[in-house]
Amino acid sequence: TGVATMKFKSPPVNSLSLDLLTEFCISLEKLENDRACRGVILTSAVPKIFSSGLDITEMYGKSPEHYAEFWRAVQEMWLRLYGSNMVTVAAINGSSPAGGCLIALSCDYRIMVENPKFSIGLNEAQLGIVAPFWFKDTFVNVVGHRVAESSLQLGSLHPAPQAHRFGLVDELVPEERLQEKAAAVMAQWLALPDHARQLTKSMMRKAVLDRLVAHREEDIQNFISFISKESIQKSLRMYMEMLKKKKS
Amino acid sequence: TGVATMKFKSPPVNSLSLDLLTEFCISLEKLENDRACRGVILTSAVPKIFSSGLDITEMYGKSPEHYAEFWRAVQEMWLRLYGSNMVTVAAINGSSPAGGCLIALSCDYRIMVENPKFSIGLNEAQLGIVAPFWFKDTFVNVVGHRVAESSLQLGSLHPAPQAHRFGLVDELVPEERLQEKAAAVMAQWLALPDHARQLTKSMMRKAVLDRLVAHREEDIQNFISFISKESIQKSLRMYMEMLKKKKS
Amino acid sequence: TGVATMKFKSPPVNSLSLDLLTEFCISLEKLENDRACRGVILTSAVPKIFSSGLDITEMYGKSPEHYAEFWRAVQEMWLRLYGSNMVTVAAINGSSPAGGCLIALSCDYRIMVENPKFSIGLNEAQLGIVAPFWFKDTFVNVVGHRVAESSLQLGSLHPAPQAHRFGLVDELVPEERLQEKAAAVMAQWLALPDHARQLTKSMMRKAVLDRLVAHREEDIQNFISFISKESIQKSLRMYMEMLKKKKS
Repeated sequence: TGVATMKFKSPPVNSLSLDLLTEFCISLEKLENDRACRGVILTSAVPKIFSSGLDITEMYGKSPEHYAEFWRAVQEMWLRLYGSNMVTVAAINGSSPAGGCLIALSCDYRIMVENPKFSIGLNEAQLGIVAPFWFKDTFVNVVGHRVAESSLQLGSLHPAPQAHRFGLVDELVPEERLQEKAAAVMAQWLALPDHARQLTKSMMRKAVLDRLVAHREEDIQNFISFISKESIQKSLRMYMEMLKKKKS
Repeated sequence: TGVATMKFKSPPVNSLSLDLLTEFCISLEKLENDRACRGVILTSAVPKIFSSGLDITEMYGKSPEHYAEFWRAVQEMWLRLYGSNMVTVAAINGSSPAGGCLIALSCDYRIMVENPKFSIGLNEAQLGIVAPFWFKDTFVNVVGHRVAESSLQLGSLHPAPQAHRFGLVDELVPEERLQEKAAAVMAQWLALPDHARQLTKSMMRKAVLDRLVAHREEDIQNFISFISKESIQKSLRMYMEMLKKKKS
Repeated sequence: TGVATMKFKSPPVNSLSLDLLTEFCISLEKLENDRACRGVILTSAVPKIFSSGLDITEMYGKSPEHYAEFWRAVQEMWLRLYGSNMVTVAAINGSSPAGGCLIALSCDYRIMVENPKFSIGLNEAQLGIVAPFWFKDTFVNVVGHRVAESSLQLGSLHPAPQAHRFGLVDELVPEERLQEKAAAVMAQWLALPDHARQLTKSMMRKAVLDRLVAHREEDIQNFISFISKESIQKSLRMYMEMLKKKKS
């Protein structure tokens, strides 16, 4: 059918580690270069979570070189996904904070399970960190400036029904109908001639993609100097300890 | 009353041929220079159709010189209409795909007959062609980035009620009340002092207008090289054949 | 609690005179530099009016030097408020036209009394004057391009329920619950770490703030030459006479 499905399967919460990001980029590139593949559905093989976002352990207590390598992989993932020539559909079958939300935002269409216990949003501010400008640009393109401004400042995680109300997700479905719905949406998008659709997609996203390409090294340096700060490292440690306590 | 009404009357479907575009620009220029005229209502004299958009026969099997002349006329129409100092109200009494939708988008206010059989949208992608960047800019200014992105990629034609829901049209009315409503809206807009209103309109639209002015020749060359492609010519031929079959 | 409340108290209608603007900037700067202060609630001590906007008597029959000084104070107020590091909440307990609306738009969050007799909007066009580009930029950031375009051209004053529908205000409450609600919203925003929230806010607003900073003197000259026009002075005189008649 020309449609691939990529399932995040990195228990317990599909954290985007350097390894997972690298693997994701390689898989995406393979599909991109496979002329038989025209669309990809992103979903999770782990119950209740789509992806918990960037792996905090990659950002804590590591060397500047490691931070640089990690951040370049995050950028690479976004550049490939947001700029993909394929039709990309996010089938969001669980919560999707931070980097998980970015992955969903970078797709062409977002379908989420209607369960209000599942939430989605760029909640970086809650951890004391700042979403980079290209997370912000991607978010503004989807929900507009006003919603993005307050949601980013508050680090809001929106329950699925709320996220749907302001367009952060395009559609809600019962969990058992998610994959069927994703396939139907994909079929609708693939009914269009590829070439015109791809040029149109590129026209819509080029400005935002070009902006990161033009400032990529600067963005890496910003990340390193921000994440290396003692106060930020302390915030991350406290957050990780809180997560551990929650688990036990 | 200072209000002119321009009715598209080029049966069967008000295709925007080179002749019609040229005539439209001349009429618009006359009104623009007529100090007694402060507003114009655009509507159709052909039942069930506002305008079917650019005349495909002008884009099929012609010389590069013809394509250049045609595209320059399309640009000219938009530059004059989107940049008009007059109040412009679209009274959309039928379907309005592609270039017909662009005309509506370029007005200050859009009122559409509430009939769900009438649809509106930039459906270029359905024909395998790509709406140029200034169609896109005009569309984004009206419906925002998210709706524009999916609607352009899918080449969606939105039934009137759906178009109203996301702001592609401002108001729906029963067919028999359309002209009366357009006149009432016009009166409301003309109650404002012209000078302040015109400067405000220019402030809102200048960035997008300037962008085409700055890239006009490049945009013509892009159009010629795109439309001259064998694959595009083939798409257009198939589309025209499909339309013929539909008719018979 | 780290929260200051600033109440406009300049009867009868909280006009933004040069004196009031100067005092407002000084107070804001003091709070900004006070490390104990993290948030400010803006509201009115005058019944039924939040602020009537710029004081027209500062714009009528004065010298170019006076116009320059006045306009610089208006710019300064906006630069400080829109760019504030503090959390800013507008508790809108009355009508809020023109400059009053700008103040509300410049806050992080807008709560308005649900009374439909109270209205809000950038109604400059009604007076024959044009909202400057940075009023427009601030407005577009809140309500989007389409709503801003028609609302600015019509000089619309939106009753509170309508303003809420398209996001010009974030929330409506009964008058007796306004201050309690503002405090609750403030507490929610202050629950976030300041540093990340401030960097995020700056990222969202920087482009628009920078644009005025880059064109500040030009914007002052534009204001002087526009406001000095005989036709504009006449419009303002007629408007002031109309206001006087209304009162008596």
